[in-house]
Amino acid sequence: MARGSELGTAVSGPSRVAAADEAVSLEELQLAARNHGLPLETLRYDVTPTGLHYLLTHYDIPAIDQPSWRLTVGGHTERTLTLDLATLRSMPRRTVRVTLECAGNGRARLLPRPVSQPWLVEAVGTADWTGTPLAEVLDQAGIRGGAVDVAFTGADHGIERGVEQDYARGLSLAEVLGPDVLLVDEMNGRPLPPQHGAPLRLLVPGWYGMTQVKWLRQITVLDHAFDGYQNATAYRLIRGVEEAGEPVTRIEPRALMLPPGFPDFMSRVRVVDAGRHQLQGRAWSGWAPIAGVEVSTDSGLSWQPAELGPAAGRWSWRGWTFAWDATTPGERELCCRAIDESGRAQPIDQPWNRQGMANNMIQRVRVVVR
Amino acid sequence: MARGSELGTAVSGPSRVAAADEAVSLEELQLAARNHGLPLETLRYDVTPTGLHYLLTHYDIPAIDQPSWRLTVGGHTERTLTLDLATLRSMPRRTVRVTLECAGNGRARLLPRPVSQPWLVEAVGTADWTGTPLAEVLDQAGIRGGAVDVAFTGADHGIERGVEQDYARGLSLAEVLGPDVLLVDEMNGRPLPPQHGAPLRLLVPGWYGMTQVKWLRQITVLDHAFDGYQNATAYRLIRGVEEAGEPVTRIEPRALMLPPGFPDFMSRVRVVDAGRHQLQGRAWSGWAPIAGVEVSTDSGLSWQPAELGPAAGRWSWRGWTFAWDATTPGERELCCRAIDESGRAQPIDQPWNRQGMANNMIQRVRVVVR
Repeated sequence: MARGSELGTAVSGPSRVAAADEAVSLEELQLAARNHGLPLETLRYDVTPTGLHYLLTHYDIPAIDQPSWRLTVGGHTERTLTLDLATLRSMPRRTVRVTLECAGNGRARLLPRPVSQPWLVEAVGTADWTGTPLAEVLDQAGIRGGAVDVAFTGADHGIERGVEQDYARGLSLAEVLGPDVLLVDEMNGRPLPPQHGAPLRLLVPGWYGMTQVKWLRQITVLDHAFDGYQNATAYRLIRGVEEAGEPVTRIEPRALMLPPGFPDFMSRVRVVDAGRHQLQGRAWSGWAPIAGVEVSTDSGLSWQPAELGPAAGRWSWRGWTFAWDATTPGERELCCRAIDESGRAQPIDQPWNRQGMANNMIQRVRVVVR
Repeated sequence: MARGSELGTAVSGPSRVAAADEAVSLEELQLAARNHGLPLETLRYDVTPTGLHYLLTHYDIPAIDQPSWRLTVGGHTERTLTLDLATLRSMPRRTVRVTLECAGNGRARLLPRPVSQPWLVEAVGTADWTGTPLAEVLDQAGIRGGAVDVAFTGADHGIERGVEQDYARGLSLAEVLGPDVLLVDEMNGRPLPPQHGAPLRLLVPGWYGMTQVKWLRQITVLDHAFDGYQNATAYRLIRGVEEAGEPVTRIEPRALMLPPGFPDFMSRVRVVDAGRHQLQGRAWSGWAPIAGVEVSTDSGLSWQPAELGPAAGRWSWRGWTFAWDATTPGERELCCRAIDESGRAQPIDQPWNRQGMANNMIQRVRVVVR
């Protein structure tokens, strides 16, 4: 790992926060052009059509030769497994509908703005993921006594804040043994696309996207806590520079609405005709089922309950609707917010942290009624 | 169309160019987060995997009920046709491999920067498109004498610089009768995804993306030149504010390389070990076949020919390779440029225009050799 830091900060600088008057840079724009969010009108689909699901790639989408690809499972285990895709596919399989969200969602709306992938609010998507329960594979390898964490390593290689690395994340043994934690090779009933981790990715429902390791090539059971870069440095809730901070884990509750009416190309301001409009949207939380959604049609001054649609499985977003009587012409700001059964809710004030993680500040949609 | 302009410039302002020191705005970022380019490493695929192809949506991806959807074909014709998808699919079909590029590609690198979708260099993709030749459908309708243009109208509705509209483009009759001009309902052997125009889009190989009307609902043969917004105002090569300018038409030649080595997450600077590296990339032009590609490893001071891969059909990009001996550690800027058989080539200086259209300035890739 040492070699990366010798390249200098022009190649790989430390994390930083934009100055008060500093607009989005071409560096941030490079990330925004590669990665992409869910166009908000496509919240209309229960399952996000492939290609519209949000996508965040830390380094490059790697070139993987599928016939020669193997998954290694070892470390603090009875035996080391080397599995090809056919063997994995011959094991028991499950399909789970899961909403995934990037931990950095909403980052670009924070003030001051953490400089990284500049998401506004759209880094989310829902898919039907199919694969083998991780517990089956770990059971075949045989977890030895004293196991603590499990590390997942991808084939994507890069440098980040001076640290050269293959992308890797660790999780506690207790977290990875759940029945819905899968090694996934199908998305929406089709082979996993390259950009979503083909041939194999990890799926840990309820956790932010950094956990869902793509292009998985190695699983290592550890008898100690995993201390790799992506756990120890990158995905932390930090306010001060020197602070270690708490780790980013599960998805905070969020509601999003389909922007009503039609947009202006450039400003994305929405235009609706005066009258009754059925607002609709989705809400989700990685902590607990959604308990309620509220809508404000006056910039957050007052709130009214939305009607929840049918529950759609523990890990999928839930639909909601709200009848809005847009009587008076003029500009409005529509907002929505979710609360889950654990009591977690969305803040109106920004939950600022240095890396812009787990920011679930409420959505605001500018609408002109005519 | 009058109602749109009454909404005011806060909703829908005139086109503008950024001030010299004006960085990318949150408005531009909204577009960058919705739309997306091709991650450059995925130039490795002959056919871009679905979901990685560039995507530019002017307004919203519309909600279309496919069973009740119909295509209307009429205007200056012997008869008016109303066609459902099954009827269209029962007609003769063709598959063509076509590289598409957004006319605004490269816009965000122009100085001063036209304010619109802020593409850097990645608004491109190649797909196998399947559908019915447009000429077959027009033949069934019967084109009357004196026909001049054909207008194509989509289901996507919005407002742009004060003009409320359904997205529509016109083409001359001569352009639309070619055998490869298709009404497309399949992409890469699968039903057309919503974001690429389901259930039906126009495909005019060789032309920039604005021509490839998505969510097509109406084809109108005209006995006069089409003068709609997207032809008369939006896609023009204009330098002065009051100028009418020339229309944007076919794709200018361009070469892109897969950035070698591995990237830094934030700066996207590439790191390679000293030694020989096989650079590879793609080149295309809508005017004529690619005649050659050249590579510079010294920021454009000197150029050497790349080796062209096999020709891949008239409308598809062509692969190229170049053996680079990266002997000395340090920073390099790699460049590439294409020339086509019509003699059109890529400029080193920016071909600036007010809307940032058809900018095919050469690509520059920062690499650190270690």
